[in-house]
Amino acid sequence: MPMNTIEAKPTEVETSGADTNGLREETLDPRDWEAFRGAAHRMLDRMIEFQRTARDQAAWRAVSPELERRYGEGAPQAGEGLERVLEDFETLVLPYPTGLHHPRWWGWAGGTGTATGMLSEMLAAGLNSIPGNFNDGAARVEQQLMQWMKWAMGFPAESGGIVLSGGSVANLVGLAVARDEVTGVDVREGGVAASAERLVLYASSEVHSSVFKSARLLGLGREAVRVIGVDEAYRMRVGELASRIEADRRAGLRPFAVVGTAGTINTGTIDDLDGLADVASRHGLWFHVDGAFGAMAMLSPETRALVSGLSRADSLAFDFHKWMYVNYEAGCVLIRDAAAQRRTFSGSADYLKPLERGTGSWPDIAGGRGPQLSRGFKALKVWMMLKEHGFEKFGRLVAQNVRQARFLAHLVDTSPILERMAPVQLNVVAFRATQAGADPERLDAVNRELLMRLQERGIAIPSGTLLSGRFVLRACICNHRSVRADFIAFVEAAERLAQELLSEKP
Amino acid sequence: MPMNTIEAKPTEVETSGADTNGLREETLDPRDWEAFRGAAHRMLDRMIEFQRTARDQAAWRAVSPELERRYGEGAPQAGEGLERVLEDFETLVLPYPTGLHHPRWWGWAGGTGTATGMLSEMLAAGLNSIPGNFNDGAARVEQQLMQWMKWAMGFPAESGGIVLSGGSVANLVGLAVARDEVTGVDVREGGVAASAERLVLYASSEVHSSVFKSARLLGLGREAVRVIGVDEAYRMRVGELASRIEADRRAGLRPFAVVGTAGTINTGTIDDLDGLADVASRHGLWFHVDGAFGAMAMLSPETRALVSGLSRADSLAFDFHKWMYVNYEAGCVLIRDAAAQRRTFSGSADYLKPLERGTGSWPDIAGGRGPQLSRGFKALKVWMMLKEHGFEKFGRLVAQNVRQARFLAHLVDTSPILERMAPVQLNVVAFRATQAGADPERLDAVNRELLMRLQERGIAIPSGTLLSGRFVLRACICNHRSVRADFIAFVEAAERLAQELLSEKP
Repeated sequence: MPMNTIEAKPTEVETSGADTNGLREETLDPRDWEAFRGAAHRMLDRMIEFQRTARDQAAWRAVSPELERRYGEGAPQAGEGLERVLEDFETLVLPYPTGLHHPRWWGWAGGTGTATGMLSEMLAAGLNSIPGNFNDGAARVEQQLMQWMKWAMGFPAESGGIVLSGGSVANLVGLAVARDEVTGVDVREGGVAASAERLVLYASSEVHSSVFKSARLLGLGREAVRVIGVDEAYRMRVGELASRIEADRRAGLRPFAVVGTAGTINTGTIDDLDGLADVASRHGLWFHVDGAFGAMAMLSPETRALVSGLSRADSLAFDFHKWMYVNYEAGCVLIRDAAAQRRTFSGSADYLKPLERGTGSWPDIAGGRGPQLSRGFKALKVWMMLKEHGFEKFGRLVAQNVRQARFLAHLVDTSPILERMAPVQLNVVAFRATQAGADPERLDAVNRELLMRLQERGIAIPSGTLLSGRFVLRACICNHRSVRADFIAFVEAAERLAQELLSEKP
Repeated sequence: MPMNTIEAKPTEVETSGADTNGLREETLDPRDWEAFRGAAHRMLDRMIEFQRTARDQAAWRAVSPELERRYGEGAPQAGEGLERVLEDFETLVLPYPTGLHHPRWWGWAGGTGTATGMLSEMLAAGLNSIPGNFNDGAARVEQQLMQWMKWAMGFPAESGGIVLSGGSVANLVGLAVARDEVTGVDVREGGVAASAERLVLYASSEVHSSVFKSARLLGLGREAVRVIGVDEAYRMRVGELASRIEADRRAGLRPFAVVGTAGTINTGTIDDLDGLADVASRHGLWFHVDGAFGAMAMLSPETRALVSGLSRADSLAFDFHKWMYVNYEAGCVLIRDAAAQRRTFSGSADYLKPLERGTGSWPDIAGGRGPQLSRGFKALKVWMMLKEHGFEKFGRLVAQNVRQARFLAHLVDTSPILERMAPVQLNVVAFRATQAGADPERLDAVNRELLMRLQERGIAIPSGTLLSGRFVLRACICNHRSVRADFIAFVEAAERLAQELLSEKP
């Protein structure tokens, strides 16, 4: 039936592959599938070797200056074909990985990744499934994974949960739901301005930077994060928290959430989660736990007691790509009140209304449970790794990394030139090179240089931070490839380099 | 040097693979790399075949009820090994894809994915690189890709840009920076409450649901989105926008942004972007464009004029995984004022301070330019696909899909039983089955049933929406595998099924 329209009419009906207005129909599919197959198998072998030989590689390598020009090349107009692209991958990308796959990556809080994770990502991308919005296998796999994670974290089966990009967004989601639920006004419709009182939340001075970022994104402002001091083990002072909440209330502010940390980035410290849960409960506040890596202490009977109270959280953020060793990226947030999660995120777009049957018949769509609408099938790699190895093995690996941290601490403690800078509570060891009577500024400079040389020489990748204003090195061990010999080799090299640096003229 | 500590001391120094406190050191690496290699190559072949034979597959298939129990199995305690996991993948996942890979997927606004994209994801996961925070190849690849996209979208080379999960978060980021920049108060520190006047933004009634979601997340509230009416082609009425802004100003509100849409989800409509840019500029408002799929009209000389004004945006959101056919997930936001982007997102965590050399010596870290800190290497697949095929081919494919939409519209227009429900401006065709004198409610029911049967029988995957309150089917063509014969087969099947439904007793 005709309708007035602005478009040109095609002149005739044609069949597959035929001319369209004088142009042959094109596709991004390989012209020659056998050639593609050959190239793909070759690259698969290349990457399996990359993983298998990780220990033989330099932990880090600087991009050669001659190559920098290549990364500056302008937008490709005509295609150069797959073979040339793969050559460029081997020249420009493969020799310069971040280094997370390496047995001596202990920087920041990054996980190793696995060969199975690599395979899973190939499968997920080949399927090109978007889990959670459609009636398909991917939605069910993600749902099953969420049930497993609720079980592992001691959350009720009816809690809400979603796979997302990582801890930063998981914190954002938890705090968004907190903000919308606890304030007693309709923030969802009226915004933060609907609250007559200024909304504030509480976290320790060691809290992850994404909590400040979340406060800014959520329209609360950075000042809304009330920073509570820490004790000598870098744990939030529970008494100070309680009195600060009371003082803020008296001052006419509206406290709504307490953020506890399971595994601070600097020292791997676990807050007194039970103590924080008690305070939050007593004051009617939302209890959010940032367990980016530390939540995985739940997986081992050896470490579970350290995160006692974690299961009392109203929302829990954690990463799969840190201490579950999953290839980047994949994180998760669990929300005890699944309906609250939907209230914050669900919309009412006509084109998203579920039907009774067919592709669009998945009832509880993921777009109504988090910031994204479409999401890649990140759940598959976690699901496959968990099924392959089982939760118990992940627990043993977590315990193994904790034992390795203690071993590294022991090596530092018995070193004539290294000193430890914080207690080891979990999997983080903070230390530095030292010298009796050395100027503090000079020690900072020496340790910065030590860190850079350890990386530049490809020995290992710890990272740096400040503790009490002093520069320290830290190793955060979320690595299933590390063995004791790696720590021994690392400490020997660090001692040697530190000795060199300390004997140089300042 | 010793320090008081709570941990146990290891008793002796051991070598690689040796006992650790009586437990052998474990890893997630394959015990037998050759067995892994065999399994991986087999699965690679399986997925290449899955892609190559996409047209022979049902477009959708319901999960068999016997399998549902399997998806409900509890958390695996012991591992079942890779072979069993791969069997489960073949039973539970592979037969039930979302369907985006299929030549007759035209649902919602999903892109096809490619074989090269699949290969790239394997490479990215194997590397396990996190682009943008470290001095590595991945950071440079992403930076290069951003330069290409700024060029393609007509943005200045010094603009900011970041690869992120997709359009929803890209809209969130654009509007976050808008909120923080335009209001004249320090929202970043003091929150939305720092503005004495209520902050409001403007979008059409056809705007994507993520704009409402963003307004809620940003603490502005859903009511902050002032909804402007559309004309008969579903374009925002520019005159109404201007007068609404003026009225709101008079009423003491604080307008800060106009959101234009390039490619509405229901009808593929492109707002009068030049007209909106003029109004935004005249009133000193931020101009954000949601170009989730429609921004790709920039890639072809045949369609570029349709999005005239897009390059004037202060921020532009678009997806790679829609009309650039990239495997899920990958989107992008470009921000004209790169410093403003950093002001909204950068923090000051001690452990993130760049050093001069080594792994941590990348200056402009991605964590300071978007909501995530760590991100997977999504840029690689886009970079590889663009290098393989070149921008010109992507332009030809966009134009091809537009021609296919016109062809489909022609088939509908010449059908005795189908009618078109909106003009075709880009790549979206809205239509329904009709019958002279039929009751509107009955027509809605017939068309819902028609949509479900088309999917259930595996014929094709259009999706449904409401236009002027009536249920319609829509095809949004972001598919590099579709050929004319697919549309002919689809329309024939739709006519047959519609005839059956309309001749059934109501």
